[in-house]
Amino acid sequence: MYSHRTIGRLSLYRRLLYGLAERGTAYVHSHELAGLAEATAAQVRRDLMAVGCPGTPKRGYDVRALIESIGVLLDTPETQGAALVGIGNLGQAILAYFSGRRPKLTIAAAFDIDPAKVNRVFHGCRCYPVEKLGQVIRRKDLRIGIVTVPAEEAQQIADRLVRAGVRGIVNFAPIPLHVSRDVYVEHVDMTMSLEKVAYFARHDRKDSRA
Amino acid sequence: MYSHRTIGRLSLYRRLLYGLAERGTAYVHSHELAGLAEATAAQVRRDLMAVGCPGTPKRGYDVRALIESIGVLLDTPETQGAALVGIGNLGQAILAYFSGRRPKLTIAAAFDIDPAKVNRVFHGCRCYPVEKLGQVIRRKDLRIGIVTVPAEEAQQIADRLVRAGVRGIVNFAPIPLHVSRDVYVEHVDMTMSLEKVAYFARHDRKDSRA
Repeated sequence: MYSHRTIGRLSLYRRLLYGLAERGTAYVHSHELAGLAEATAAQVRRDLMAVGCPGTPKRGYDVRALIESIGVLLDTPETQGAALVGIGNLGQAILAYFSGRRPKLTIAAAFDIDPAKVNRVFHGCRCYPVEKLGQVIRRKDLRIGIVTVPAEEAQQIADRLVRAGVRGIVNFAPIPLHVSRDVYVEHVDMTMSLEKVAYFARHDRKDSRA
Repeated sequence: MYSHRTIGRLSLYRRLLYGLAERGTAYVHSHELAGLAEATAAQVRRDLMAVGCPGTPKRGYDVRALIESIGVLLDTPETQGAALVGIGNLGQAILAYFSGRRPKLTIAAAFDIDPAKVNRVFHGCRCYPVEKLGQVIRRKDLRIGIVTVPAEEAQQIADRLVRAGVRGIVNFAPIPLHVSRDVYVEHVDMTMSLEKVAYFARHDRKDSRA
């Protein structure tokens, strides 16, 4: 079992490694990957040791092999399905973003209250009425929920997702969700990102990566 | 000058403190805030010491005072304006999200290539043709950019933003941006969030917050 920080870094390394592979890079040193990931080289080596990729001091890590090793840890042998609730602009953007991107991880059902959206297909994903949330999630055995409803509905939707068997939630609503300790919640906080950028846009960049 | 990690935590604390204040909580202890933020109490005390809020051992921190102290650091005395490029679903979701939310931080101009969008107003924000990007950003003196264009256009847009004077970018495109070291980039990585949640949804939650 890895910590949520380790899993986050491994996912980040993989994204950076995909970028290197696309540009034709075959080998990478821990300090190079550390520079891209804003981590220390020691941290990168520790993380990659954990996935069983030792690398060689001379050439560094084999980029393709590393992508595969991280995949063994992050991906499931079978496809993992997610349920998205709330097909507003953000929900549609997320459906478009993940459509066909990760074959092992797909959004298998979407839900909305708007009758104009129900029974339509958005970026390859069918929209069900929110009354059928529990039924559809149980039938498809979905364990992941993506919450893109307004703040005032988010907690109620989270409760229903958890009751239906969901064990991990990506929360885009701007409020904290209260769930039992066996459910993992990742809060995507767009305000936090913008506030960080605003701060550094008006200060000198020196020493800011400490 | 604070590190990007410290600024991120302070922004997170403020969001959590707003939530506490809304529920009528007047005082909070460092270990309580640490629990909500998934940090250690020592870390919270160190961060809050840095913004000049010592707290008292008995009652803890005054929630309202703490929100204000963090605001002195994170907010500007004057309004800070951002430019958003790419009014697709994600761009529109972001415009809706920030519309009227933070008076000190507003999206002051949006850009798109689609003639059907140009000169229209989206959630209170005017859309300009992307050819006028440099001109509008310089005239309005914007230092923050939000990139919501497709991956293949993101680098070119980032280059144009930086040439126009932008010093901080929130990047929603699924590729890393290469900018000079005096520009701060925050990458909002939706794949990473979903991969973390997928991992924990299929593993036991114990010990995962280390």
